[in-house]
Amino acid sequence: MLSAGQTHPRDRKTQMSNIREADTPIQDDEFKPSQDVIDQITQAIDDGDSAALDMLLEPLHAADVADLIEQLNPARRRTFLGLYSGEIDGEILSEIDESIREEVVDALPHEVLAEAVREMDSDDVVDLIEDLEEPEQQAVLAALDDSDRAAVEQSLNYPEHSAGRLMQSETVTAPEHWTVGDAIAFLRSEDWLPDQFYHVILVDPRMHPTGYVTLGKILSSRPQVPLREITEDSFRTISARQDEGDVAYAFNKYHLISAPVVDDSDRLVGVITIDDAMSVLDEEHEEDFLRMARVSDESHVSDGPFETARQRLPWLIINLFTASISALVISRFEATLSTLVILAALMPIVASTGGIAGTQSLAVAVRALATRELTSANARRVVFRELGAGLLNGIGLATILCLAGTFLLGSFQIGLVLGMAMIANQIVAAMGGVLVPLSLSRLGLDPALASGTFVTTMTDDMGFFAFLGLASWILM
Amino acid sequence: MLSAGQTHPRDRKTQMSNIREADTPIQDDEFKPSQDVIDQITQAIDDGDSAALDMLLEPLHAADVADLIEQLNPARRRTFLGLYSGEIDGEILSEIDESIREEVVDALPHEVLAEAVREMDSDDVVDLIEDLEEPEQQAVLAALDDSDRAAVEQSLNYPEHSAGRLMQSETVTAPEHWTVGDAIAFLRSEDWLPDQFYHVILVDPRMHPTGYVTLGKILSSRPQVPLREITEDSFRTISARQDEGDVAYAFNKYHLISAPVVDDSDRLVGVITIDDAMSVLDEEHEEDFLRMARVSDESHVSDGPFETARQRLPWLIINLFTASISALVISRFEATLSTLVILAALMPIVASTGGIAGTQSLAVAVRALATRELTSANARRVVFRELGAGLLNGIGLATILCLAGTFLLGSFQIGLVLGMAMIANQIVAAMGGVLVPLSLSRLGLDPALASGTFVTTMTDDMGFFAFLGLASWILM
Repeated sequence: MLSAGQTHPRDRKTQMSNIREADTPIQDDEFKPSQDVIDQITQAIDDGDSAALDMLLEPLHAADVADLIEQLNPARRRTFLGLYSGEIDGEILSEIDESIREEVVDALPHEVLAEAVREMDSDDVVDLIEDLEEPEQQAVLAALDDSDRAAVEQSLNYPEHSAGRLMQSETVTAPEHWTVGDAIAFLRSEDWLPDQFYHVILVDPRMHPTGYVTLGKILSSRPQVPLREITEDSFRTISARQDEGDVAYAFNKYHLISAPVVDDSDRLVGVITIDDAMSVLDEEHEEDFLRMARVSDESHVSDGPFETARQRLPWLIINLFTASISALVISRFEATLSTLVILAALMPIVASTGGIAGTQSLAVAVRALATRELTSANARRVVFRELGAGLLNGIGLATILCLAGTFLLGSFQIGLVLGMAMIANQIVAAMGGVLVPLSLSRLGLDPALASGTFVTTMTDDMGFFAFLGLASWILM
Repeated sequence: MLSAGQTHPRDRKTQMSNIREADTPIQDDEFKPSQDVIDQITQAIDDGDSAALDMLLEPLHAADVADLIEQLNPARRRTFLGLYSGEIDGEILSEIDESIREEVVDALPHEVLAEAVREMDSDDVVDLIEDLEEPEQQAVLAALDDSDRAAVEQSLNYPEHSAGRLMQSETVTAPEHWTVGDAIAFLRSEDWLPDQFYHVILVDPRMHPTGYVTLGKILSSRPQVPLREITEDSFRTISARQDEGDVAYAFNKYHLISAPVVDDSDRLVGVITIDDAMSVLDEEHEEDFLRMARVSDESHVSDGPFETARQRLPWLIINLFTASISALVISRFEATLSTLVILAALMPIVASTGGIAGTQSLAVAVRALATRELTSANARRVVFRELGAGLLNGIGLATILCLAGTFLLGSFQIGLVLGMAMIANQIVAAMGGVLVPLSLSRLGLDPALASGTFVTTMTDDMGFFAFLGLASWILM
């Protein structure tokens, strides 16, 4: 792990590839090997031709090799791992998706695994092993040097999804009294520096970070300049217990490039770099997006139909129950419906338009909670804003429905009932869309997870109830 | 603009703030000023006390000042700009949300605006002015030095949302034959260096980038080492015409920190840094999230009810029309419904569960398209996977419905009709969820934008049609 800065055992040279504009909407673009290369690789696997495989994979970026391994079907992946496992290095290993990580680690010969993890930074080792089973975890830990193992074990002591898991323990520090010249001499004399680092962190004698200096400033300043005179204003430390989502938020908001991580006594224990924060930001968004659509964020494009069905079924079953509530609401109005069957055809209009409005209001609220734009300070104002917007759109839609009722269905009264029910339901939708996620958030739950079910249940039930209730009263 | 590296006119010192764990779910956390400070600021604005305002805002990060300005109500914002406009610098200006940018720029005295834009990097100036009206654009351009104005105008010649708009034109380059010592001497002698830079880009005599060296490598290498011996394998150039979403994707996938941007003849024209790529990634996710919920990505938490209603109404009206199609489908079965009114109560179950399944399938497909995991190469396999999953879940739900029909409604036949309709609709949902976004993507349209409407229209219509059709056939 501390061999960072050395070149790789395999001399992986990514050609200078020019990222051209993607002109085909479905991207067979240059962010991955061409279909031609993929076909040749598949062929080499099927032929068991490991020499050809080495040659084809050598020019690829580790991220592309990892993507390729993920996208193979399980049988071919096994063959591939048999042929190629000797060539899998730390870079590829840290790019492999967690869904197949266990499988890949199991397939690696012991000495290959050992060499791969020794060249990884500690955060990548932590990321690799945190989801492995106990025996594989032990195998990886055993392959590390004592000091690296201690660093990894320290990270694993912090909660999952915390800054402590995300940080790398390799830090570049300097005493506060050093000059630029001291720092350069120190950096030249060390051979264990991390692969990527962007700041030299100033620490006091008790290892409390007190500021940091960018490498650009060090390079552009005279040797005699004291480091403390060229520190950055943006300096912030992050607690190792901080949630990784908050860390990503802070990086994005404050344009941080790297940030020192401190333990409970404010002592430096590691550093988080922006590339890891960017990955977390990406994952958190993905999770919210899928959760809003009631899909598990474990779902993966390489899953088979059984796995896919299993992941989605629970929310479908929940929907059977919530839809049954609507059925009960409707069944209360059987008398009305049997007198005027056209109401059965019209009632989904009110319910479904309410569902759309509820989802709109909900999506805005969930995002605003995530970006801290919706807080307890302005919650009241946002609720009133939604109420106003719901009322306005309700009136707009009601006008359309009154006209449609009069001129298309030949009944102003039916249009009026549709319109009044629509106003009521738009208000319920707007209120539900903001109050449900606010309440879940106050309870410490993820507002993206269950809000949709609550809100559409509300808009369905209110839609059917308001429409059929008003119809019973006005039309009967 | 080229004063980068200097300290700011106002000496904005962000205190060393320790990012503690957020323990309250609604975050009044340390990523923003405390409510107390916000209340004092509001008070100072209402009192017209600009001295107090200066004192309160001085310790805040520019991003927090910008957030504050955005969150003020319009009347108070005007008062604030009157009191504080003299203190608004380049950092604050580049953090201001585009929804109120015009208003802020208009309120700034000419010399304040001029000084603010002169200290900004060219990418921030481009970001600032690309959405301004012509007169404000001219005012900003006029404030720049000739060379900076040329750089900004060059960027503006590239399409919106392209790498050319995202890049900063300030680049740090070195001839290919330089050594580490040459580079350090050069960097020490220049005083125009960008605020943030992470690589020295090697260029040939015709300004074609041929590699780059991290600042960490320069600092840790002996002066006599040639730069070309310590270049990074990860080197990639980006075309200025590349879409910014693709750029963000490449940064995240390949862990880039900065990347040189080239024009059509492969000459270096600028550099994109990861913090800008991270912002783009964040915005693209936000856009997809809101679009899937049929909300304009222009919507903002500070919008009033009229603006909010106006943004959401179009999709609600579209839904009135699509829901009318369902009403037409249902009205074909009036005879059946009037004979067996309970069918009206049960029919939403099939339609709404289909809607959930369609949204699930759709969300997975939209994400997989965005992450390039769904391509023309594996589209067939994914479609079959969805078909299988839809069939499996259809059978599972049908089993539950048959049992519920038999034991709760006392009619196996009704359960059977519900179940058969459910299987049909789950298959339609699964197919629609993947084929609709694939088709939109092939047509060059954003699959997140309109897919939801197509898919839920399909599942609603199929749900009602299959259920009522089967009921007419089996139960009548």
